[in-house]
Amino acid sequence: MTHKFDVVGIGNAIVDILVSVEDDFLSKHKIPRGSMQLVDEATSEKLYSELGQAIECSGGSAANTIAGLASLGSNAAYIGKIKDDQLGHVFDHDIKSLGVEFTTAKDTSGANTAHCLVMITPDAERTMCTYLGACVNLMEKDVDPDLIQNSAITYLEGYLWDPEHAKKAFRKAMTLAHNAGRKTSLTLSDSFCVDRHNAEFLHLAEHDIDILFANEQELLALYDCRDLNDAFKAVQKHCEVTAVTRSAKGCTIITADEIVDINGISVSNLVDTTGAGDLFAAGFLHGYAKGFDMRTCGRMGNITASEVITHMGARPDVNLKEYLANNL
Amino acid sequence: MTHKFDVVGIGNAIVDILVSVEDDFLSKHKIPRGSMQLVDEATSEKLYSELGQAIECSGGSAANTIAGLASLGSNAAYIGKIKDDQLGHVFDHDIKSLGVEFTTAKDTSGANTAHCLVMITPDAERTMCTYLGACVNLMEKDVDPDLIQNSAITYLEGYLWDPEHAKKAFRKAMTLAHNAGRKTSLTLSDSFCVDRHNAEFLHLAEHDIDILFANEQELLALYDCRDLNDAFKAVQKHCEVTAVTRSAKGCTIITADEIVDINGISVSNLVDTTGAGDLFAAGFLHGYAKGFDMRTCGRMGNITASEVITHMGARPDVNLKEYLANNL
Repeated sequence: MTHKFDVVGIGNAIVDILVSVEDDFLSKHKIPRGSMQLVDEATSEKLYSELGQAIECSGGSAANTIAGLASLGSNAAYIGKIKDDQLGHVFDHDIKSLGVEFTTAKDTSGANTAHCLVMITPDAERTMCTYLGACVNLMEKDVDPDLIQNSAITYLEGYLWDPEHAKKAFRKAMTLAHNAGRKTSLTLSDSFCVDRHNAEFLHLAEHDIDILFANEQELLALYDCRDLNDAFKAVQKHCEVTAVTRSAKGCTIITADEIVDINGISVSNLVDTTGAGDLFAAGFLHGYAKGFDMRTCGRMGNITASEVITHMGARPDVNLKEYLANNL
Repeated sequence: MTHKFDVVGIGNAIVDILVSVEDDFLSKHKIPRGSMQLVDEATSEKLYSELGQAIECSGGSAANTIAGLASLGSNAAYIGKIKDDQLGHVFDHDIKSLGVEFTTAKDTSGANTAHCLVMITPDAERTMCTYLGACVNLMEKDVDPDLIQNSAITYLEGYLWDPEHAKKAFRKAMTLAHNAGRKTSLTLSDSFCVDRHNAEFLHLAEHDIDILFANEQELLALYDCRDLNDAFKAVQKHCEVTAVTRSAKGCTIITADEIVDINGISVSNLVDTTGAGDLFAAGFLHGYAKGFDMRTCGRMGNITASEVITHMGARPDVNLKEYLANNL
């Protein structure tokens, strides 16, 4: 079956505000290390006013994955809601500059384009506070059937379960994809996000998702268990493919037939882990869409994730196609 | 004579849009390498649409110097015009987060906060196209007499000669400073800028400026000569102190008594030269305000400049006070 796009991603369209912090900043504000939490505009403003000088760059989990896929040479599209404001313009420019198809209608009034305060501690761990802004206006009608039907894989982020209406957009996309004989893929996003939406995510994994991405904590949270092997066996019955990212240890790929560990890439200059999971998904899905075997897909994910953690920001700094060719 | 601020800077308040380009992008668009040129909003938009994904961070020549001074532990203030928009908010946050006094009234209508497309070629050279936006609304009335009178040094950027009304603000600041027995300082900014305003800059150097900053090309352009030694001798008759930055060679400090070369700091990981001159001025002025001898001031400038060229962006990535202490 031919397709126009390898992957279409749907997610919260966000501009990141990256700032270095000391560990005690997080404890002072009672923000769990490594988490993503939602904040209202006033809380975001208050936090921002206490933070040091920052840099801004486009982010958003699924958007980062789609940017990575485009940089790898995949045909990619994106659906997400921004406002027609300065940060929206930045987001729009950055994703289109990579060749991504991005045609979601922009809001002209209401909340501003979303931003995320990404606080990076000295150990390169990132902790995030997100103001969803215009993302709350992503609606069912924003899901262009043509785009979904013409994409081999529809990739969704768990964070979409946070803004109320986006769930409907998410469900519409899954239905359209499956009715067109396409694959669906989900990243669980964050263990706190899994906790917030546990029953629904379990249902998705069991019934609706072909390719699942998770890290260890997220998978344990999903199946409410303590032993990773139990979680692996549980998810094996649910999804066609599950890719579990395991930080420096690499990843584990779970299919009906096997559970395979794939060693991580050692990185000497770890700077900022923002986007590691997103770029793993980019490398893996690029391989999957091109028909590579699972081990190669996992290794591709490990390689693309290893690039993004050597610099600030969640989008690749280099042409990933060349980077992958040089490191595979 | 006591003072509240070591340095107050006046300049075009700008947010930088940093993007990597290949050399042929500049030749295709006939943009002179290493220059700063002014563009209108439409031209900026057109260029931006052809550029790859970018990162945004606060910039502006004098603002970078003032940020550097604050990071070094100097008491610093800034005067510059932004609009009350998203990028203005970024600029405002970043400079205040370093402890800089910044109280210039924000525009609530009219042109947006200024931005500069900073195009970085593989050799780490930066070439800039600036849309002045709200900067054209910096007026005489924005120069707070109290701030100037209570600052040991008033630091001005040559780029202020580009927006029409800023010249008056510049002149008012110089008069206020000298009437209060304070020092004035100017950076020539860019050789094209010197060419645009040559006669006026010569007059400033001869009559109004105590401490002058320039690179080799700017000084040659100012005195319309080919031999640097001729330019050194010419400026020696005009300014009390002149600091000439000379890239990897370091700097030359010119006073009535002597002309001294100070070796540069070798940098192994040159990434982006944006802000090198601005941060040299920060290190030099920090030393000058603290009463160090000229050689030490020059070395301080070389050290602070060497930090900013090892990463993207024109503001320091580290606490410069500690960095200077570790490298002096």
